[in-house]
Amino acid sequence: MNFTLNVLGTASALPTTERYPSAQVLDVRGRLFMIDCGEGAQMQLRRAKVSFQKIEHLCLSHIHGDHLFGIFGLLSTMGMLGRSSVLNIYAPKTFRPVLDFFMQHFGEGVKYEINLVELDMSEPEIVYENRTVELLSFPLRHRGETYGFIIREKVPPYNVYKEAIGRYGLSLAEIGTLKRGEDVVRGDRVIPHTEAAYRPYEPRSYAYCSDTAPFPELATWVKGVSLLYHEATYPAEMSEMAEKNFHSTTVQAASVAREAGVDRLLVGHYSSRFPSVDFYLDELRSIFPESYLAKDGDMIDVPHVIASREATWQSSK
Amino acid sequence: MNFTLNVLGTASALPTTERYPSAQVLDVRGRLFMIDCGEGAQMQLRRAKVSFQKIEHLCLSHIHGDHLFGIFGLLSTMGMLGRSSVLNIYAPKTFRPVLDFFMQHFGEGVKYEINLVELDMSEPEIVYENRTVELLSFPLRHRGETYGFIIREKVPPYNVYKEAIGRYGLSLAEIGTLKRGEDVVRGDRVIPHTEAAYRPYEPRSYAYCSDTAPFPELATWVKGVSLLYHEATYPAEMSEMAEKNFHSTTVQAASVAREAGVDRLLVGHYSSRFPSVDFYLDELRSIFPESYLAKDGDMIDVPHVIASREATWQSSK
Repeated sequence: MNFTLNVLGTASALPTTERYPSAQVLDVRGRLFMIDCGEGAQMQLRRAKVSFQKIEHLCLSHIHGDHLFGIFGLLSTMGMLGRSSVLNIYAPKTFRPVLDFFMQHFGEGVKYEINLVELDMSEPEIVYENRTVELLSFPLRHRGETYGFIIREKVPPYNVYKEAIGRYGLSLAEIGTLKRGEDVVRGDRVIPHTEAAYRPYEPRSYAYCSDTAPFPELATWVKGVSLLYHEATYPAEMSEMAEKNFHSTTVQAASVAREAGVDRLLVGHYSSRFPSVDFYLDELRSIFPESYLAKDGDMIDVPHVIASREATWQSSK
Repeated sequence: MNFTLNVLGTASALPTTERYPSAQVLDVRGRLFMIDCGEGAQMQLRRAKVSFQKIEHLCLSHIHGDHLFGIFGLLSTMGMLGRSSVLNIYAPKTFRPVLDFFMQHFGEGVKYEINLVELDMSEPEIVYENRTVELLSFPLRHRGETYGFIIREKVPPYNVYKEAIGRYGLSLAEIGTLKRGEDVVRGDRVIPHTEAAYRPYEPRSYAYCSDTAPFPELATWVKGVSLLYHEATYPAEMSEMAEKNFHSTTVQAASVAREAGVDRLLVGHYSSRFPSVDFYLDELRSIFPESYLAKDGDMIDVPHVIASREATWQSSK
C-alpha cells in the first residue's frame, strides 16, 4: 500500500541540462496521479519506468509553458500506445482552449476519453474521490489562474481486535459501531472504541504548491500533511525578485511548512541562475529541519505510521 | 568555414530513454539552420552547447508532433533569453494555425519578430539565400504536407593565381572575367580560365529528407549532395509497414543515396521497436557503403574538398 512520489522535473521557467521542467507522479496504492507536465515529461516517465496507461489523473496547476508543454507529447503517446481508459484532467479553465487546440490539430490518435474537470474554487474542495483516496484543489497566488493540490488517503475504518470480539462477545452490529470509531453502549455499560479497536494507519497526504507567492491561508490548507512540496524558486536574498514574479524563496517555503506542521518539506522549481542549489538547504533547515531538495529522478516514499497493537489493547473491567 | 551537423534527436513517433524526437542544427560558416523541433529539442540544444540566439532559420518539415512539439518551449525560451533578432521559420501552411495558437496563449514573452515563410512548391525552390549559402525546399511523400530541405554553399568565385596575374599581365577587368569562370579573350588569343584560376573549394551541401516514403524524383533532387540525411524508420523486412505509414526502410534510403550519388548517407528516425538499430548498418552498406547511423548528440563535420593548386596551374604557350 505504497504512497510514493516520483519527481520528474525540478526546473523553473528555463530548463537546464540537469533539470527538466515541472512534472511529478504520485503512486497511491497503485493508482497514479500525475501533477503538471513540463516539456520532456514523457521521456522522464519512461526513465522512471512509470506506466503511462496507469496514469488515471493529471493535475495541471496552471498553463505557464514550463508546467504544460509536455502535455501534447504525453496525450499523443498515450494514444499511440493504444490507451482506452479515461484520463481525468483537473485544470484551470484557461486550459480548455489548449486542449481544444490539441484535439483539433493533433488529436487524431486520441481514442480514449479525456474528462476535463475545470478548477474554480476559493478554498480547498474535493474534486475527485474513491473509496480510499481523495484529491483536493485550492487556489494559489501566482500570475494567471493557478491551483495547488492535496492527495490524501481517507481516514481508514478502525480495525477491531480479534481478542476483543471474544472477550466482549461482540455482535456484528457492535463490530460495525466500533469500526466507525464509536463506543459500544450496552444499557449502562460502555465499551470505549479505543479499548476494542485501533486505527490501522494514519492517513497519508501529499500537497503540491507550485507556482505561488506566499499568502496567509496556505499553511492552514496544507496543515499536517505528510509531505509538502512547495516551490522555492529563489534563495532568501532574492525575495524582491520572488515578489515581483509571484514566486517563493526558501525561507518562505520553509515558513509555510513550519506553520502548517507538516512532516516533511520537499522543494523544487529552482531558478536556472544556480547550477547547484545545495546552498538552499541550510536556508530551509534553519527554519524547518525536515526540509529536502528535490532532484530530477527522485523517488520519495511516504511510509505508513502503523498503529502499535500491543501497546493499546487492554480490557476494561 | 565549417559545415557541421548537430544531431539532436533520432527517434520516430515514440521517443525512448535514449532518443529524442527529430531535431537537428546545421552550422554553415557560423550561421545556424535548425531543422525540425521535436519535444525536448531545447534541452538537447543546451547539451550540444548550441547558442539559441544564433539560430537564424528554423525549417519545419511537417506538423506531426514528433517533429514539432518542442517548438513551444524553444520559442518561449528564446523570448525569455531576450532574443531580439528575427527568426525565420520555413514550414508548410499547416503550421500557421499552430503558430497563431502559440502566440495567442504563450507569446507574451516573444518580443522578437518571427518571419514565417509558407512552403508550397512541387519541386525544389530556393526559399532563402545570402551571399554564400542557399536554402531550398521540396515536397516529400508523407501523410499531410511535408517538405525536405537542402542547405548548400553557393558556387564560389574562382580565385586567380597570383602567378598568372604577372605572367599574363592581367587587367582588373580580365581578373573579373576569370573569377566568373570565363575565359579571357585578347583578339585571337584565349587564356582558358582553368589555366589562370581555380575553384577554391567545391560547394558543400546537406539534404534532409524526413519523413518520406520513396518516390522517383527524390534522387534527382538531392543529386550529388555532400551529406544526405534520409529517414530509415524501418529495417528491410518491414517494407509493408513502411508503405502503410509513408515511411522508408534502410534499403530504400540507401537506394536513394546510391542513385543520387551523394558523398555520405546518414539515417535516423528509428522505430521505437528496436532499442538497438545496429543491424540497420549492414542493410544500408550492402547498397551504399558510405552509410552511417545517426545517434543523438552526434556532431558530423563536412570538410571542404580543397582544390589542389599545384596540380592545376600551368601556363599555356
